[in-house]
Amino acid sequence: MTVVLTPDELEETLRAHAKQYHSEHPFHRRMNDGESSREEIRGWVANRFYYQVNIPRKDGAILSSCPDREVRRRWVQRVIDHDGTTEGTGGIESWLRLSEAVGLTRAEVEDSRHLLPGVRFAVDAYVTFTRTKPWVEAVASSLTELFAPNLMANRLAAFERYYTWIDPEGLAYFRSRLTQAPRDSEHGLEIVRKHCVTPETQAAAVAALSFKCDVLWSMLDAMEQGYGHH
Amino acid sequence: MTVVLTPDELEETLRAHAKQYHSEHPFHRRMNDGESSREEIRGWVANRFYYQVNIPRKDGAILSSCPDREVRRRWVQRVIDHDGTTEGTGGIESWLRLSEAVGLTRAEVEDSRHLLPGVRFAVDAYVTFTRTKPWVEAVASSLTELFAPNLMANRLAAFERYYTWIDPEGLAYFRSRLTQAPRDSEHGLEIVRKHCVTPETQAAAVAALSFKCDVLWSMLDAMEQGYGHH
Repeated sequence: MTVVLTPDELEETLRAHAKQYHSEHPFHRRMNDGESSREEIRGWVANRFYYQVNIPRKDGAILSSCPDREVRRRWVQRVIDHDGTTEGTGGIESWLRLSEAVGLTRAEVEDSRHLLPGVRFAVDAYVTFTRTKPWVEAVASSLTELFAPNLMANRLAAFERYYTWIDPEGLAYFRSRLTQAPRDSEHGLEIVRKHCVTPETQAAAVAALSFKCDVLWSMLDAMEQGYGHH
Repeated sequence: MTVVLTPDELEETLRAHAKQYHSEHPFHRRMNDGESSREEIRGWVANRFYYQVNIPRKDGAILSSCPDREVRRRWVQRVIDHDGTTEGTGGIESWLRLSEAVGLTRAEVEDSRHLLPGVRFAVDAYVTFTRTKPWVEAVASSLTELFAPNLMANRLAAFERYYTWIDPEGLAYFRSRLTQAPRDSEHGLEIVRKHCVTPETQAAAVAALSFKCDVLWSMLDAMEQGYGHH
């Protein structure tokens, strides 16, 4: 980009990355089409857990690099959402309950025994990105949340319809993200629209979102190799 | 140290660092003895602000490096204490009110125009330490809070007695730390006692606290050079 985009044009460019979102990955398409085996579902849940436990750590990195108190006041809620406020609460706990609902033990999920190297590398790359890049780029990388509610709604419907062997109580994480993700992406978008007002910073924001789409996509590539039989 | 200390011995070793605490620095002794000029008080408040604004950033770094959800759930409160939950609340805001009470404008404190290079370097070294060292060492470096309540109580008494030109309303930050610091140091101590159970990790914890004492001391060295006339 060599010209400055208006905030609306920037937002439109960012939103156009929906087609790069991991909802379009073959592994994910099969999952939402009801075609995944139990092994694939379990593999996905166990591997995706590594992403979940790293979310507060990337948000801590953003809190650490962000100089704006007003931003931090809102951003800190993400850490609280995932960690919870007491034992047995929070998004990570919900993911452990999902793990149990698909037939995994907490122990085998928490000790990373099923974690595929490609998933680990992708997630670690994401955390490193948020620790080393300017904070507004780290915020921009979180904007895959723009596309999450749509995916979550489809995933919830798919799981309830096709994977009836999973206790619907285990799907609480997906439900909670239906409201959290729009709130979070609205804040992220507000920050990027406000701060990215030069061709360079706008290009960096777009690249950050593209990078994050690659992270999520690459995680599913590793799972496709690890669990896909077709 | 070549032998393992019991948790109580380790705590005793850590607490013995009280004599390295910046309350013993000549600049600070004069302040609490009522001998500081208005220029010294203002210089101290303006420079110390840089430390205050960096506290949530070092705590964000600890949240980012800490893998323990239970620890993060409690640690996140430090970020909230300093940033506040809404405009006009939190420890940083209280420090800005102290700044106004000593005759500085918010603008001249927030834009760092009075910030001395030695203060900046010391504070930056602290944040870098928490970003790059193992999280338990970063926690250990926070244990100067063990000595803070005593200092705060003396400082409050000194300010109310000697510096009557400062509106006592401006001293709210010191009052809030009287209860926050013991809660925080108790948590930090619990973590260090639990995790530092080898000669190496115990030595690292002691070194971390010693480093942090150096940070605070070095800040006052810079202020002594910048504002001390005696």
